[in-house]
Amino acid sequence: MTQRAYNFAAGPAALPEPVLAQAQKELLALPGPRASVMEISHRSAAFKEIMAAAEANIRRLLAVPDNYSVLFLQGGGRLQFAMIPMNLLGEQHHSADYLLTGAWGKHAAKEAAKFGEVAVGWDGSDSKFTQVPTDAQLDLSPDAGYVYYVSNETIEGVQFANEPQIKNSTLVCDASSDFMHKPLDISRYGLVYACAQKNIGPAGATVVIIRNDLLERSSSELPAYMNYKLHAEAGSMMNTPPTFAVYLIRLVTDWLLNDIGGLEKMHSINQSKAKLLYDAIDQHSDFYEGHAQPDSRSLMNVVFRLPSDELTKKFIAEADEKNLTALGGHRSVGGIRASIYNAMPVAGAEALRDLMVEFCKKNG
Amino acid sequence: MTQRAYNFAAGPAALPEPVLAQAQKELLALPGPRASVMEISHRSAAFKEIMAAAEANIRRLLAVPDNYSVLFLQGGGRLQFAMIPMNLLGEQHHSADYLLTGAWGKHAAKEAAKFGEVAVGWDGSDSKFTQVPTDAQLDLSPDAGYVYYVSNETIEGVQFANEPQIKNSTLVCDASSDFMHKPLDISRYGLVYACAQKNIGPAGATVVIIRNDLLERSSSELPAYMNYKLHAEAGSMMNTPPTFAVYLIRLVTDWLLNDIGGLEKMHSINQSKAKLLYDAIDQHSDFYEGHAQPDSRSLMNVVFRLPSDELTKKFIAEADEKNLTALGGHRSVGGIRASIYNAMPVAGAEALRDLMVEFCKKNG
Repeated sequence: MTQRAYNFAAGPAALPEPVLAQAQKELLALPGPRASVMEISHRSAAFKEIMAAAEANIRRLLAVPDNYSVLFLQGGGRLQFAMIPMNLLGEQHHSADYLLTGAWGKHAAKEAAKFGEVAVGWDGSDSKFTQVPTDAQLDLSPDAGYVYYVSNETIEGVQFANEPQIKNSTLVCDASSDFMHKPLDISRYGLVYACAQKNIGPAGATVVIIRNDLLERSSSELPAYMNYKLHAEAGSMMNTPPTFAVYLIRLVTDWLLNDIGGLEKMHSINQSKAKLLYDAIDQHSDFYEGHAQPDSRSLMNVVFRLPSDELTKKFIAEADEKNLTALGGHRSVGGIRASIYNAMPVAGAEALRDLMVEFCKKNG
Repeated sequence: MTQRAYNFAAGPAALPEPVLAQAQKELLALPGPRASVMEISHRSAAFKEIMAAAEANIRRLLAVPDNYSVLFLQGGGRLQFAMIPMNLLGEQHHSADYLLTGAWGKHAAKEAAKFGEVAVGWDGSDSKFTQVPTDAQLDLSPDAGYVYYVSNETIEGVQFANEPQIKNSTLVCDASSDFMHKPLDISRYGLVYACAQKNIGPAGATVVIIRNDLLERSSSELPAYMNYKLHAEAGSMMNTPPTFAVYLIRLVTDWLLNDIGGLEKMHSINQSKAKLLYDAIDQHSDFYEGHAQPDSRSLMNVVFRLPSDELTKKFIAEADEKNLTALGGHRSVGGIRASIYNAMPVAGAEALRDLMVEFCKKNG
């Protein structure tokens, strides 16, 4: 059996080992259908039960109100970048406000501009995306069709501690990289979406939670697959959903409920892991430089730089020898990015912290 | 270990058991990355090698000419129903011809009508979709932007023995349910696509093979995820591809090349399996009624009816006891549908044939 590393990849990212073990155990055959979960009809009783359980788990973990639909879609964030304006803008709502706190918000705003008017409600690019805005800093249009923000920017490692407190009732959130890392008050949102491959499953599924009144904005002229209303009416069965990805989301949410004990506990664990790493940065601030401002630091992606590219390479190589992998920063930011999503054990963060302290002593 | 059945599901459908066994073996960790294939970056060397191998296998199995791109997308057939007219129709090409040989062609034509003019080049609905047209029966427009057809209609079990021989160079084919069941002359096509979940992998990935000159038809106004040109330029890495599905496509195409020995051999095996079942129908034609006309019979989906609903239910129950599963016909056609894609072993088709003969003797 190949040894598993502590995997700090930014996404696709680590999954809980008990989830992988369960998937491995039943990969060739589920007891009822006597076939792999990948081989059964999405309309079979066995798969319908899996998808219903995945949805029920999400509803329970996030206390999703009844007037919201939970959808399982394909196409990742890129498809959402277009679907959101295509569905939510139209004759009644012409423009949307976008908060730019990192690369993903910028991509989303650029795509949305194809389908409506985009106003920038805050732009963090001048400060190299090292912080998120306060509510007072936002410049929002009173009649915007929605306000879009990214709760955690994966590349820069900046995160909102809480959602912006705004008057517009249609707050739209790309929560791909911090979904289910803590409880969320869904009632504050019009739409929250998350690609699975950071915190809740493999690549290939996107969870969309949408308030049902917004479904009325979807025009029947839209490409059917891009129409939220049709997906909601079909219970995410307009066509074959990504069945294996949905199955894994079910297992991951089972793990959050049963092994972890819910999102309050998950949050507390995530805070401990992040503290280990940020403390190591702060205690060796002559050697390590954090990218994010302290009040905007992400609990999910800890981004920091070493004094030189040479030392960065050496750090990554030594980490790899200690079985700590995928620590290279995004090419646009450089340095180190340690992604410590829900599935990263505390022991993994401790091992990285130990290396940081030791490496600084030897090379600082 | 749960016993595996002979699984006649129409899709998601059976996968080759050696493929599942391999995936199971390395599900927790690939040797290099020391992480599951689901947990590694799509931009990692390990995953890039997997996707390159999947593409190389497809190119080799189908002898794909160099002037074609091979794309791995999400969104299934429904997204293709819209992407095809959105990319291939426009200022230069206003209309497309659709051949309707079953439910999927009808769905595709209905969706395409949102984005351009759709002309019906042949309509099999009068004969309840029991046959495919001859070339002489087609009514094609000389200036159609493309001609669209479905090589195998999964629900009705009708299949073209060969692609229509037409003058229009932009033949577009939904090959979802018979992709790689035999060699295909790709040079006859402008675009061929296949959802993975019938013959080459799990749900959640769609393979698109497109002639490169057609990429010039894609407007930059399109939603980025729906733009073939952008996907081709990005090598299917515009965003995170469905990595686990691509990995399985790689394993399935490895199996086709190495275990089966290529598509000529696969075709010959598929012909043998289909012959077993159609012979059983023909030899008991007072009891079993095939849906498709003999010259339009599908090698992939063998659709037939028994004398009554009661006998159909009894047949399905007895089959299940013998570990032959998922034989119920689509609700729109009724009866029995035995899907015998590439992964169905000859022994599975033999077991079903034996049951058909025995059941007829006892109940006929």
